[in-house]
Amino acid sequence: MKNIIIGQSGGPTAVINSSVAGAYKKAKELGVNKVYGMVYGIEGFLGENIIDLDEYLNTDENIKLLKRTPSAFLGSCRYKLPKYEDAPEVYANIFTILDKYDIDAFLYIGGNDSMDTIKMLSDYAKDNNKKQVFIGIPKTIDNDLPITDHCPGYGSAAKYIATSLKEIIRDNASFGIKKPTVCIVEIMGRHAGWLTAAAALAQDDTCEGVDAIYLPEIPFDIDKFTKKIEKLAQEKKSIVIAISEGIQNAEGKFICELATERKVDAFGHKQLSGSAATLASIIANKTGLKTRAVELSTLQRAAAHLASLTDIEEAETVGAKAVEAANDGKTGMMVIMEREKDKKYSINYSLYDIHSIANVEKKVPREWICTKHNRLKTPYLSYVRPLIQGELYPIFKDGVPSHLIRK
Amino acid sequence: MKNIIIGQSGGPTAVINSSVAGAYKKAKELGVNKVYGMVYGIEGFLGENIIDLDEYLNTDENIKLLKRTPSAFLGSCRYKLPKYEDAPEVYANIFTILDKYDIDAFLYIGGNDSMDTIKMLSDYAKDNNKKQVFIGIPKTIDNDLPITDHCPGYGSAAKYIATSLKEIIRDNASFGIKKPTVCIVEIMGRHAGWLTAAAALAQDDTCEGVDAIYLPEIPFDIDKFTKKIEKLAQEKKSIVIAISEGIQNAEGKFICELATERKVDAFGHKQLSGSAATLASIIANKTGLKTRAVELSTLQRAAAHLASLTDIEEAETVGAKAVEAANDGKTGMMVIMEREKDKKYSINYSLYDIHSIANVEKKVPREWICTKHNRLKTPYLSYVRPLIQGELYPIFKDGVPSHLIRK
Repeated sequence: MKNIIIGQSGGPTAVINSSVAGAYKKAKELGVNKVYGMVYGIEGFLGENIIDLDEYLNTDENIKLLKRTPSAFLGSCRYKLPKYEDAPEVYANIFTILDKYDIDAFLYIGGNDSMDTIKMLSDYAKDNNKKQVFIGIPKTIDNDLPITDHCPGYGSAAKYIATSLKEIIRDNASFGIKKPTVCIVEIMGRHAGWLTAAAALAQDDTCEGVDAIYLPEIPFDIDKFTKKIEKLAQEKKSIVIAISEGIQNAEGKFICELATERKVDAFGHKQLSGSAATLASIIANKTGLKTRAVELSTLQRAAAHLASLTDIEEAETVGAKAVEAANDGKTGMMVIMEREKDKKYSINYSLYDIHSIANVEKKVPREWICTKHNRLKTPYLSYVRPLIQGELYPIFKDGVPSHLIRK
Repeated sequence: MKNIIIGQSGGPTAVINSSVAGAYKKAKELGVNKVYGMVYGIEGFLGENIIDLDEYLNTDENIKLLKRTPSAFLGSCRYKLPKYEDAPEVYANIFTILDKYDIDAFLYIGGNDSMDTIKMLSDYAKDNNKKQVFIGIPKTIDNDLPITDHCPGYGSAAKYIATSLKEIIRDNASFGIKKPTVCIVEIMGRHAGWLTAAAALAQDDTCEGVDAIYLPEIPFDIDKFTKKIEKLAQEKKSIVIAISEGIQNAEGKFICELATERKVDAFGHKQLSGSAATLASIIANKTGLKTRAVELSTLQRAAAHLASLTDIEEAETVGAKAVEAANDGKTGMMVIMEREKDKKYSINYSLYDIHSIANVEKKVPREWICTKHNRLKTPYLSYVRPLIQGELYPIFKDGVPSHLIRK
């Protein structure tokens, strides 16, 4: 390969930049001349907003900083590539730019929507005998890509959620004489409850854990929920509940929509917020208990200072594997991770047809969810625990973590 | 001194337990027999809810864990001690319990309201020739105690706020092609803006910093704010604003009250939440820009995993100094911290009459606030920077920080 280009797409994570680091290092090792970066994903690429990564990543120090920098170093986008028949000029533009920079491989780090871009571009390239190859690199805190065992970004978010919940549980347990405070913690996840499930990790030898976990996979019943809180309030001095932003009632109506306006983003998703605030208000009114709503919000996907070392290393590796795949002439594939069975945690990396991945959402298996006690079962904990292991401490400068940023 | 008792009061912090550790170690060094802990502060004490700290702190390992455990290990309360003339039986009860356990010194870790308890009890003891001494240990993330240079708890909260804002700024800057997203971050602080001021620490070599900071010390003008956002939206691809939960308009009305009900806590404080959500909604409607509200909420006072080592060490020292003061027969005093002038950061510890401290709130000096650009001036940065220096990494077990908890 002469030159390659890499882009970041969709919601950022704490380790999305480690995939850039992994791809860059592997490309240089393979003798690639230029490793370009798309600024603001394919949306920026269409405006020829391209940088040469040598400018930024030519020192070990900068690579170290990049791996500790949250969010998309290159900039991201939520751009939905139109179908060829609707906008042939967009495709012409893309390949004109690729040819202009003599780019052989297009690597795209993203989730379900971003993999749709890889699918459409690789299909177009094959149908039109273009030389370029297109490889997807998995990334999403939501952990909802199919086929792959898990997605880089998830482990770090899970580690942050577990740590923050342990701290919130301690805080909420401070006051214990009067009636308990009910703290409802809202965790990201529209349709898949992977992130919220990570609340189960807060329970250990030194923490009583959350009292219940509500995932969007299971219809949410406000009356049952209220009864559960009333029962807990008789038994406990502190109540902490983890809910997904995407919990819905039996009619499929989002709980947050019971109180707030609905908004829609570029992909037609409903934009949710305020499920915890909505529930906190309902419970306060129904039970008279003091309630508090906490949203982990942006922090859960941006907390590089608490990233999982396992996650960082895996994000690097999927970046490197994508470069190898492109170098081998593969196209229309995403790098996937397979967990070795019956032994200590270990991941095998391979490739999978992008057509089976784009736009498919993987949910938490029903058999891992205990609906009776609103808990996650042991198989989930065995699945998630290895993903949060290890730390890569920030490089502190004057008391705060240092990052690498584009000029 | 034969036996002493220590209690924690008011809102927890990331380092309030380090003061317990410091007091315990110093007491043992001085040959104190029993170091008791009040469970749930004086409210628990009144019900004789008392533990012997030897049960928990008799190993170095447990002391290490205690210093890394957020929130009140002993449990806290928001109990307002009544005046003697209103409830003499409460005072009788307190001294009966103190005598029963043969306690010579009563140490109380807390903020303004808690120091009122020390004031009333020490006054009563003097007036009635009781042998017990009463010493206050400063603690508050709000940093609003007078006389002392700063308060243990503040440095760690400031470090968390600075780090989280750097991460939020990176996240918000990810998407840059379309109109900017306005992210409004709400930081604790009813009347004093110390915590929100710490947002200024997000700006450094590797971060553009927040675009404006709004403290409760300065009346908040929604029209001016809207114009500022509109101007920023023409110049920038990402806008991040830090506001205090307690910002008020010129009429003294809390911004959050423009949208939400008002609640009152045990001390008669208005219970605030939702200033950021209120503003995000107003700005979205007025400007058509996409807005996002982030509340740092409980996390900013509970994030022991990111505590400042300077803060931890100072919290330990004020605990130890309180024991020394009690041993010297001092009473009705709070330990204060004085910064040495004209040299490298260094703190001298001394004692100050509790009557000048209880119920007095110290605000951010006006001359440190630039109202024209909604920024903090250099003297504030020189003041706060030393307080966030250093880290004490968590003891991770299976991927999450370990804590010490009461059984």
